[in-house]
Amino acid sequence: MALAQALAELETLLGKRLATSQAERDQHGQSETWFPASPPDAVAYPESTQEVSEIVKICATHDVPITAWGTGTSLEGHALPIRGGISLDMMRMDKVVEVLAEDMQVRVQPGVTREALNTDLRATGLFFPVDPGANASLGGMAATRASGTTTVRYGSMRDNVAGLEVVMADGRIIRTGSRAKKSSAGYDLTALMLGSEGTLGIITELTLKLHGQPEAISSAVCAFDTLEAAVETVQLTIQMGIPMARIEFVDDLTAQIFNEANGTNFPAKPHLMIEFHGSDSGVAEASERFGEVVAEMGGADFQWATTTEDRNRLWKMRHGAYPASIAHRPGCMGLVTDICVPISRLAEAVAETKHDIEAAGLIGPVVGHVGDGNFHSVLLLDPEDRDEFKRAKAVAAKMAERALAMGGTVTGEHGIGMGKMGYMRDEHGAGWDVMGQIKRALDPQNILNPGKLVEQNG
Amino acid sequence: MALAQALAELETLLGKRLATSQAERDQHGQSETWFPASPPDAVAYPESTQEVSEIVKICATHDVPITAWGTGTSLEGHALPIRGGISLDMMRMDKVVEVLAEDMQVRVQPGVTREALNTDLRATGLFFPVDPGANASLGGMAATRASGTTTVRYGSMRDNVAGLEVVMADGRIIRTGSRAKKSSAGYDLTALMLGSEGTLGIITELTLKLHGQPEAISSAVCAFDTLEAAVETVQLTIQMGIPMARIEFVDDLTAQIFNEANGTNFPAKPHLMIEFHGSDSGVAEASERFGEVVAEMGGADFQWATTTEDRNRLWKMRHGAYPASIAHRPGCMGLVTDICVPISRLAEAVAETKHDIEAAGLIGPVVGHVGDGNFHSVLLLDPEDRDEFKRAKAVAAKMAERALAMGGTVTGEHGIGMGKMGYMRDEHGAGWDVMGQIKRALDPQNILNPGKLVEQNG
Repeated sequence: MALAQALAELETLLGKRLATSQAERDQHGQSETWFPASPPDAVAYPESTQEVSEIVKICATHDVPITAWGTGTSLEGHALPIRGGISLDMMRMDKVVEVLAEDMQVRVQPGVTREALNTDLRATGLFFPVDPGANASLGGMAATRASGTTTVRYGSMRDNVAGLEVVMADGRIIRTGSRAKKSSAGYDLTALMLGSEGTLGIITELTLKLHGQPEAISSAVCAFDTLEAAVETVQLTIQMGIPMARIEFVDDLTAQIFNEANGTNFPAKPHLMIEFHGSDSGVAEASERFGEVVAEMGGADFQWATTTEDRNRLWKMRHGAYPASIAHRPGCMGLVTDICVPISRLAEAVAETKHDIEAAGLIGPVVGHVGDGNFHSVLLLDPEDRDEFKRAKAVAAKMAERALAMGGTVTGEHGIGMGKMGYMRDEHGAGWDVMGQIKRALDPQNILNPGKLVEQNG
Repeated sequence: MALAQALAELETLLGKRLATSQAERDQHGQSETWFPASPPDAVAYPESTQEVSEIVKICATHDVPITAWGTGTSLEGHALPIRGGISLDMMRMDKVVEVLAEDMQVRVQPGVTREALNTDLRATGLFFPVDPGANASLGGMAATRASGTTTVRYGSMRDNVAGLEVVMADGRIIRTGSRAKKSSAGYDLTALMLGSEGTLGIITELTLKLHGQPEAISSAVCAFDTLEAAVETVQLTIQMGIPMARIEFVDDLTAQIFNEANGTNFPAKPHLMIEFHGSDSGVAEASERFGEVVAEMGGADFQWATTTEDRNRLWKMRHGAYPASIAHRPGCMGLVTDICVPISRLAEAVAETKHDIEAAGLIGPVVGHVGDGNFHSVLLLDPEDRDEFKRAKAVAAKMAERALAMGGTVTGEHGIGMGKMGYMRDEHGAGWDVMGQIKRALDPQNILNPGKLVEQNG
């Protein structure tokens, strides 16, 4: 790494948009969870694809690592520049390039956040559905193959990106996909880039699929006596083909945390939060059928939210579960888990996880995108207590092992970053070596987010 | 290539399941369209993943090409062993391994056909929706990222494969994906393999996503005075969010060909064939709203098919469009085109294509999965007439160029094989080089289906 020379050339290219102040380096060297800080040597703020390409070429010439940065909301240390080098802050590339309303698509730069995009789209009758909770950048959401509360209906980033513009490790600019709704024209480079976490290329533009704002929306929350009853309600609802737009599980502790943070009065029981999208009659029919399932499973305390305000309050509360959980134990840090299992094993997986958390003497509310079989526990840890951290890591490891034993995955939506590297061999076997082969082929110098996702990336 | 030694070792492994008879070689050396015959040196019939792995290892040792074979129904010469070597006939691996009804998934071997699978699933209330027309093998459908009439609702193979077992070019067996509904665990090797046309690995097992059989189904056909009116009806229907399970365009000539083949009495006009899936009330609502759009666009001659028999007759006729077209001009051969454009450009693309066909003095009925923006013309050619063939190739080239100029793709669902190689640089630019880098990384000896899909694969 010939850092000084690279920095000089980058400064010539970017002027003040190359920052080396301690404050800016520190800001790009921390994450939302428990990973130790790891500041870059400098932060670059590109404003165009061409500039990204130039930056990558300079870094390639001098063997300097490049780690892309969006909103910094990833949960597995993805954006930490653990080998130093450049943090590539994409947030100045924040233009909605072109709304293609007739084709229900939009071209955006990677620094546009999902909330900004939906604000921009408001007048079109269209919206972008993927909703990981955090107001993340769309580039970051693509890089981690994000999903969230609406994935049960609208899919994840895998399903909602039509094409990408990507700067490769040697500075070449490629375009993947097309504006057509489908294609069989060769290897699916779009899908390969989605979830590659900045290790194969830098996403500089996205063509996203949009959806029509539904004519009718109805949300509800209801309580169950046991988590098994709540989860079985989800399984039955899916099997009956009732079309849900969202179906979220929150456990008894999370209900209590909601009350603390929002002044609500939920009973300390497991709850489901659900939403239906469709025509007036379609939503009415789905709501009615769902109500029958809930009644059959002993659910109660049904609260419907039909006004936009009530609905927004409901989902704001759900999205606020992470900070509310952190606030529940003042001064704590969060270790967030994220497994996804086949729907048939979901009740078992959630129950055993809750048992493990209790047995380890930990505090860990459980929430989940249960329509996908995906759930999280936020383990609330005293940062000074090494033994507690050790017990939390053991619980997380047991969750991951259980997910794999059930045929699931160690991460439903948060990705690998640094935090899940240790499980990749167990999940993928020789497939992990194949990922390494692809990495070496496309980034032979290993300058793109080194140390993440693939083994041969040290 | 040390062919003789490889054949000797393969015979030791497979006994009579290694065939070198002229008849079997010829059978595996032809395709459904205009590509010249190209028989392999031998045909291998593996019965297990382990055998596929052993075969690949033997071929790798002796540098012998391997081209996988399913039902032989691909349309771009994908399965022609143009560099000789082994044709790997996967059709003895035809077991439905495990129905996972609770998770709406099924594990199948690659030689199971889509019709055989759906027959097998009949009692479960579930079905596999991807429907390319031909009764293709599921391995072949995965390898070409196939889609078809139901993709507008259920997606393509890209959307309906949860995971794969793949034998790599060095004989390693990997598993991609998981049984969970989503995952962010590293590079999406499942998506990379889908559409790789046997150039990156041999698919030996698939975990497919299933869907619940709809409570109600309703199909209809209706006629329009102009193709613009028919296609604009599609655009409007999509924009209104009316949930279609199928929406197919057939032009005036195809309507006439249907009459010839099936004794029907369709007017010689463009038609739409449509199907709705859902609850009784949902289907009724969609049908009604669609009827209103059709009336507004001047559509007429509405024929509803609500009984299973009537529906089957309708879709059998649609799926029979290719052989019926060939029969329309006795002794002809077919050159099948397959472009996909943004929905907003569809009417224009179809109209200009029909104009080109007429201007070139060719016979070419046009059909399309118009809900996806995808359509085909089957150019019916006299095999002896070189000039006609040349004019047909020029029309096909113009279609591909038009698709790209409109932001679309040169192949919506048939794939690249040999037929579309010439357009890959135009469609993907430097992205095609990236595909070549991946190919060289995963198959450095270039033994898997050499000469197809990627440039560096000669």
